[in-house]
Amino acid sequence: MSALSSSSSPLRLGIAGLGTVGAGVIKLIEANADLISARAGRALKVVAVSARNRKQDRGICLDTLRWYDNAADLVNDAEVDVIVELIGGAEGTARTLVEAALKAGKPVVTANKALLALHGPALAKLSADNAAPLLFEAAVAGGIPAIKTVREGLAADRLERIGGILNGTCNYILTVMRETGQDFATVLADAQKLGYAEADPSTDVDGWDAAHKLAILAGLAFGQPVVFDSLHVEGIRQIGSADLDFARKLGYRIKLLGLASLREDGLEARVTPCLVREDAPIAQVDGVFNAVVTESAFAGRLMIEGRGAGAGPTASAVTADLIDIARGKTVSVWGVEHSDKPALQALPLSAGKGAFYLRLLVEDRPGVIADVSAVLRDCGVSLRSMLQPTPARNETTPHVPLILVTHQTSEAAMQDAVTRIKALSVVTASPVVIRIETD
Amino acid sequence: MSALSSSSSPLRLGIAGLGTVGAGVIKLIEANADLISARAGRALKVVAVSARNRKQDRGICLDTLRWYDNAADLVNDAEVDVIVELIGGAEGTARTLVEAALKAGKPVVTANKALLALHGPALAKLSADNAAPLLFEAAVAGGIPAIKTVREGLAADRLERIGGILNGTCNYILTVMRETGQDFATVLADAQKLGYAEADPSTDVDGWDAAHKLAILAGLAFGQPVVFDSLHVEGIRQIGSADLDFARKLGYRIKLLGLASLREDGLEARVTPCLVREDAPIAQVDGVFNAVVTESAFAGRLMIEGRGAGAGPTASAVTADLIDIARGKTVSVWGVEHSDKPALQALPLSAGKGAFYLRLLVEDRPGVIADVSAVLRDCGVSLRSMLQPTPARNETTPHVPLILVTHQTSEAAMQDAVTRIKALSVVTASPVVIRIETD
Repeated sequence: MSALSSSSSPLRLGIAGLGTVGAGVIKLIEANADLISARAGRALKVVAVSARNRKQDRGICLDTLRWYDNAADLVNDAEVDVIVELIGGAEGTARTLVEAALKAGKPVVTANKALLALHGPALAKLSADNAAPLLFEAAVAGGIPAIKTVREGLAADRLERIGGILNGTCNYILTVMRETGQDFATVLADAQKLGYAEADPSTDVDGWDAAHKLAILAGLAFGQPVVFDSLHVEGIRQIGSADLDFARKLGYRIKLLGLASLREDGLEARVTPCLVREDAPIAQVDGVFNAVVTESAFAGRLMIEGRGAGAGPTASAVTADLIDIARGKTVSVWGVEHSDKPALQALPLSAGKGAFYLRLLVEDRPGVIADVSAVLRDCGVSLRSMLQPTPARNETTPHVPLILVTHQTSEAAMQDAVTRIKALSVVTASPVVIRIETD
Repeated sequence: MSALSSSSSPLRLGIAGLGTVGAGVIKLIEANADLISARAGRALKVVAVSARNRKQDRGICLDTLRWYDNAADLVNDAEVDVIVELIGGAEGTARTLVEAALKAGKPVVTANKALLALHGPALAKLSADNAAPLLFEAAVAGGIPAIKTVREGLAADRLERIGGILNGTCNYILTVMRETGQDFATVLADAQKLGYAEADPSTDVDGWDAAHKLAILAGLAFGQPVVFDSLHVEGIRQIGSADLDFARKLGYRIKLLGLASLREDGLEARVTPCLVREDAPIAQVDGVFNAVVTESAFAGRLMIEGRGAGAGPTASAVTADLIDIARGKTVSVWGVEHSDKPALQALPLSAGKGAFYLRLLVEDRPGVIADVSAVLRDCGVSLRSMLQPTPARNETTPHVPLILVTHQTSEAAMQDAVTRIKALSVVTASPVVIRIETD
């Protein structure tokens, strides 16, 4: 790695993937060349690229760059010092490229959250064994330097909890639903037209993207990788505009939160929609913005809010990692010396506690509330409040919503109660259950 | 610096100043010894201390540590690798110690904002000349890793604006004034009793502490030190509870903000109370919390909110710097290679633009509004709204408040208008002028 320790020659980059982020990195490095050199002590120079289609117009000139049809060939280019992986996906070309680069002792910068979340332990070992840094600031919350904050800014402190609003698409959809009263499907369709949601939105709206980011943040916070499949993951498809409206009446907003806590008995980690108090700082984070929250023993509570996606913010994060490499200031993958400690398994959801919001659709006749209350009592779940809105005058539906808010209870008791409530003949649709975060 | 490059031996610390922060650092290093070693790759070990009174009970045991009555003697202790300066103050012992340490090639970690703001250029030169890192994360916004965010997290991006709520004492006072309707003097006295304000509160409430932090942030953001004396600095003594009340009626809150922007014609940098829209993220940052906001070309707007003071957060920041030193991952003082470029001089306040809130005390008779409006018209200041509250029924005062809100105008025109309004015979007290931040 002689090219890395020389402080006068440029750091030569091979970029795989020239979508909006790849093109954004090339544009940023050109636009900010002066200040990057001043800060890194040397220039960053893109020398080679790889993508699917050479002819596509990306608004950047590729004439002076070496082109590779096969991304993995970038590793064998002796004049490429660092591999920048912007292809995406946990398998296939991206994984092959990153593994090959690390094995060859070449530093890697990636924005690939799925790759890190699913293969973090193996990649961390490759990085350590080959003394090849693996940096991934852009994989979590785009332009927010969340990785650096946890791995270095809070390096002295014991993290107790980490998480936040980790998916801009879901936050945008929930914000527009709240502001306009439109339903999920309508807002999703509009978001797709605006480019805020993918044609296949499931990675975002079913919570998987947030879960990838949460697994990475938890790995950093607790110094040890997390078994991705052990996370509990829910999305936002079941949230109705009625829920946003009832939440508001109760003094809450609804956010999709990823949250991980290290408790005495183990790791709690889940992605779920949550009711948050409307005056809580995280409730104010709207639209495509992300927010990362940490709670630690000495520093207390910290919240960073910023743009979680988009070419500019993501390019800024990728290039900050490149500057760290150019400066020779890199830290190991999980922020601690590599060990062969097994990945952390999250506790089952039923081991948790929480307060809950329930929306039921019930028959509009006397005795329904008594039936539902009896189930909750039998399961040991204590009710805090109840709301049965008067149906609009022109509605003649025999089914009406019933909103219940519980006190703190165990997840296990709640799951039991929901199963029994579903089975009641007066309940005419599957209950919507949303956790309440009070701190 | 052989001790610094050895990764197995502990990094040996000499701490000067054993107030709450110094004692906090010792407690943190003890409490988190396991994770600090795992993250830093070696232990941090306090070996020597210096303070004014050896006998004072600080809740920590000093028996195994070497004691120096004279802080500067820590530098000559061959078994001290790093100096931790927690004495405070821009001159005297703190300055002597830091200069001596850097000259001796010993890395320094400090929480001293005044020292950095006033002597930053000379200290940066000493640090560069002697290859002795100078780190100061704790000098700005306590537990918020603001320095690292700007110097490394946003290293790839061109900062356009930086600032925020940089003084927890002022933010606490303004929050309590808004919530209780109490006046400045009452809330200050209570804050002093609670330990949130010093016996001599002028460093905080007159804006100097925020200005020190702003000068440091601007130096990092723009890669060049800032001439401290060129900053415009106002405090919060003139803010009445009436202003907080009128601001609320107009849809605003009042915050003491430090803001620096690099414009085409130069640096704008000032600490002033500001009206901010009540739904803006920064308006939600209440009590002793601080918030640092950055705006940059690619990453966009970023806001970090957290605890800006206190033993725990400050100790966390100091120790994170020590871990950077232990890891061998330090960056130059202003984040760029040292140069002899002169410090940046801020533009005079009159070169700026802004919208303004004015509270006048005027005689309660017809024609007053016409007189005031005529002055504004003559100065080219355009009015957006006006508010003349009806006096309470039992008040018989001949003087009533008059609230004016202007459109965007030049600071020079506004200064001119205020001078002329003051001179009007119908105006019976000095106007209170507060800037309005609309973005």
